[in-house]
Amino acid sequence: MDNRYTVDLNCDLGESFGTYRLGHDEAILPLVTSANIACGFHAGDPSVMRKTVRQALQHQVALGAHPGFQDLVGFGRRDMAISPEEAFDLVVYQIGALSGFIKAEGGVLHHVKPHGALYNMAAVQPALAEAIAEAVYKVSPEVVLYGLAGSALVQAGEKLGLKTAHEVFADRTYQQDGTLTPRRLPNALITNQEEAVQQVVRMVKEGKVLAQQGVEVPIKADTVCLHGDGAHAVAFARLIRETLTQEKVTLQAPVL
Amino acid sequence: MDNRYTVDLNCDLGESFGTYRLGHDEAILPLVTSANIACGFHAGDPSVMRKTVRQALQHQVALGAHPGFQDLVGFGRRDMAISPEEAFDLVVYQIGALSGFIKAEGGVLHHVKPHGALYNMAAVQPALAEAIAEAVYKVSPEVVLYGLAGSALVQAGEKLGLKTAHEVFADRTYQQDGTLTPRRLPNALITNQEEAVQQVVRMVKEGKVLAQQGVEVPIKADTVCLHGDGAHAVAFARLIRETLTQEKVTLQAPVL
Amino acid sequence: MDNRYTVDLNCDLGESFGTYRLGHDEAILPLVTSANIACGFHAGDPSVMRKTVRQALQHQVALGAHPGFQDLVGFGRRDMAISPEEAFDLVVYQIGALSGFIKAEGGVLHHVKPHGALYNMAAVQPALAEAIAEAVYKVSPEVVLYGLAGSALVQAGEKLGLKTAHEVFADRTYQQDGTLTPRRLPNALITNQEEAVQQVVRMVKEGKVLAQQGVEVPIKADTVCLHGDGAHAVAFARLIRETLTQEKVTLQAPVL
Amino acid sequence: MDNRYTVDLNCDLGESFGTYRLGHDEAILPLVTSANIACGFHAGDPSVMRKTVRQALQHQVALGAHPGFQDLVGFGRRDMAISPEEAFDLVVYQIGALSGFIKAEGGVLHHVKPHGALYNMAAVQPALAEAIAEAVYKVSPEVVLYGLAGSALVQAGEKLGLKTAHEVFADRTYQQDGTLTPRRLPNALITNQEEAVQQVVRMVKEGKVLAQQGVEVPIKADTVCLHGDGAHAVAFARLIRETLTQEKVTLQAPVL
Repeated sequence: MDNRYTVDLNCDLGESFGTYRLGHDEAILPLVTSANIACGFHAGDPSVMRKTVRQALQHQVALGAHPGFQDLVGFGRRDMAISPEEAFDLVVYQIGALSGFIKAEGGVLHHVKPHGALYNMAAVQPALAEAIAEAVYKVSPEVVLYGLAGSALVQAGEKLGLKTAHEVFADRTYQQDGTLTPRRLPNALITNQEEAVQQVVRMVKEGKVLAQQGVEVPIKADTVCLHGDGAHAVAFARLIRETLTQEKVTLQAPVL
Repeated sequence: MDNRYTVDLNCDLGESFGTYRLGHDEAILPLVTSANIACGFHAGDPSVMRKTVRQALQHQVALGAHPGFQDLVGFGRRDMAISPEEAFDLVVYQIGALSGFIKAEGGVLHHVKPHGALYNMAAVQPALAEAIAEAVYKVSPEVVLYGLAGSALVQAGEKLGLKTAHEVFADRTYQQDGTLTPRRLPNALITNQEEAVQQVVRMVKEGKVLAQQGVEVPIKADTVCLHGDGAHAVAFARLIRETLTQEKVTLQAPVL
Repeated sequence: MDNRYTVDLNCDLGESFGTYRLGHDEAILPLVTSANIACGFHAGDPSVMRKTVRQALQHQVALGAHPGFQDLVGFGRRDMAISPEEAFDLVVYQIGALSGFIKAEGGVLHHVKPHGALYNMAAVQPALAEAIAEAVYKVSPEVVLYGLAGSALVQAGEKLGLKTAHEVFADRTYQQDGTLTPRRLPNALITNQEEAVQQVVRMVKEGKVLAQQGVEVPIKADTVCLHGDGAHAVAFARLIRETLTQEKVTLQAPVL
Repeated sequence: MDNRYTVDLNCDLGESFGTYRLGHDEAILPLVTSANIACGFHAGDPSVMRKTVRQALQHQVALGAHPGFQDLVGFGRRDMAISPEEAFDLVVYQIGALSGFIKAEGGVLHHVKPHGALYNMAAVQPALAEAIAEAVYKVSPEVVLYGLAGSALVQAGEKLGLKTAHEVFADRTYQQDGTLTPRRLPNALITNQEEAVQQVVRMVKEGKVLAQQGVEVPIKADTVCLHGDGAHAVAFARLIRETLTQEKVTLQAPVL
């Protein structure tokens, strides 16, 4: 048997706000296995959250909370110097808020993935990572914590006994220490779709990625981050899904 | 046996925000039996919510969500023309958010009481009342819905099979139709503390209140709203507590 | 000579927020003579405001402040029970904020038009209308106050000695008392573009509109509200512009 | 003649928000010569701004804008990784908003002093400092830019030709490079009031401060920051005012 490989395809969803529409949620939902749903701080609002939970349930996509900084105008992408205690509190709040809609719709919370700057900071700051992991553990110890592959965040989750998912990116290049090439550097992004897909296949099936320095480095790929907006998002999601299926990789969310 | 009377003393708590302090939470908590905790829309923030849940648990005070309009600068006191669907969504969100902290602290959600303008509008607008009751029912069907005694809100809760608590006010006068005298009218407020306490005693033990028109009207008094701020709040809470105890009224939150 | 008719074409612009895009500002700017720029309360943010002021200046479009309720999630479209004093304050604040960008870009503030629910409420509530007119008068007495034709708002402005512009709508039907047919009623909207344009031509050249009751009513049309979003917004703006030009109506913003 | 020394006493004011009260504005206003008025992002709201402008005018205190990060819950005290362009935009917006109230009340904007984390970041990040100075220059080139004595912010202002005021702190200790001792270090604060006052007298009259390393360092003291909240704020303001007066130091805001 060949289909011993499994990976999750996740996408940020529910990022509309009030009258503002963002993302191709309807089109992307049939293509992913798990959804990171914005919780009203960096994006999303109560009505958007309800609709997104309902849609994701209809597509049997695993429901995740996607907590971020309280910075709507910056879309949660700007670093904020918050204390670990503040991080704990804002993650508890946002997991709780989303869980309200999940209960109302009869679903189950599956995972938590921090958003944007909070995700990036938690990848490298152990105190912040521990506070976030602790928040997840205190509110929903049974769910999966998603974080950058090999990061401080997944380490903090594992230390607490949480299930974790190491996340990889199709369209980002890697450094020889296993970190992402910073966006400000040339070659940070993989714009060739075929190349991006092949990087994912190798990460999933061989546990390796070719770093910018020309060496292969080991990487754990439990879940792949797809983008839900942008011109080519849906087409790329379809391509990666088809390729992985051809490669006999099972697409499913991490089992609770 | 005489102590067949029971009433709940509730108070709005956790209304601080960021660096801003409001209310005498520490002083009032030993005196009440249930707490309505602000959920970050009209007051409160994630850190304040966590601390308030923790403090209330230490005093064995029943924990309630206190959802309000998203109008921090107006403290949720200004009517907003929201749709029933929007009301449903913002109540689900806020109950969920508070429930996150309650789970993190090992407690149990006991009740939901809308705040300010949302409370007043839900008292008289059946569609809004039904949306709020539905939100409570969908997220936490086991909890108690607090609303103005005899209002559309408690009626909507009862129709859905929710436990409800009819709320009365010590320091407000009543009209012969059982409604509160609007604040803009003279004599809307009872400023004499002894008088206010005696009104509560009669409402609890006799189920009656003397309306401004000089006639006695029936009223159901399951819970009494105490104020947590203002110069005399703590002293008045102490007085009402002592008087009710002397009158052999048992003080406790509605049983779940 | 025939071109004794003049009218202003205005449009709400700068309604994007953070990462969220709204409206076809680039396409609509060459077609209008004045812009109502969102000021960060119901839409817009500081960066969007700067860019919108700059773009409008490039197209020699008159710059207007478009103050609204502090209700981003509701896009300022939900009635809020604010006091006249609160209305005064939020209008002063928002005119001031936009004026900062106008000064920074070397332009001149031309008009103020309240947005959404604030506009509608000010059309019928004299106390609110007076507070808004007073705010404009205190901050920028030389600018034009835009309001619904014949409304309490333009009356309040005229009473204070402000220049005013009576605003009409191409795609809305009218009642025999000169008010707009409420949106909840059938026939509130004119969906046939040619019909909408002809209604404007008659309002501008004859000062009349055919009410739903079948009678002609007098109406003053200083400025026509065009929409900046929606599928047909740009095409309709082009059509109305061309038709009015053919009809020898001069298109220009009210002179300061 | 001895009274050749002049210094400004400034204080952050108008930091209340909605129902939340902060600071002793009424008591501190008679004691200072210039007011830094919160502009609604980190503190303050439109109504508070109007009242504060009015009060400050009554006391003939110079009116300053006090722009901060859009982080009400963090009171603008948390570093945010904003771009210089975003800093420019938020400073323009907030200066404009306050200027609206100043115009409405018949006053004149006198200075701009960034708040909290924005102030601290602008003291050491030249690109941010230049963006803020540019914003002031573009909106109100005639006003004074207040910044930490010797900082990147005052340097950026001077480079643009703005009037600047070097600000010193009574209750903070200094390092031998002229910077403030970071708050996380011991001895960062001077708790002895007499000592704090004497440090100010020396800074003003001798242009020197005794650094923690035991050496005297030169410092320019155009304005002294007083605190408007805290238990001893008013008493300390009175003490410093009296001492400086006895020392024949003229207390007045920088001349425009």
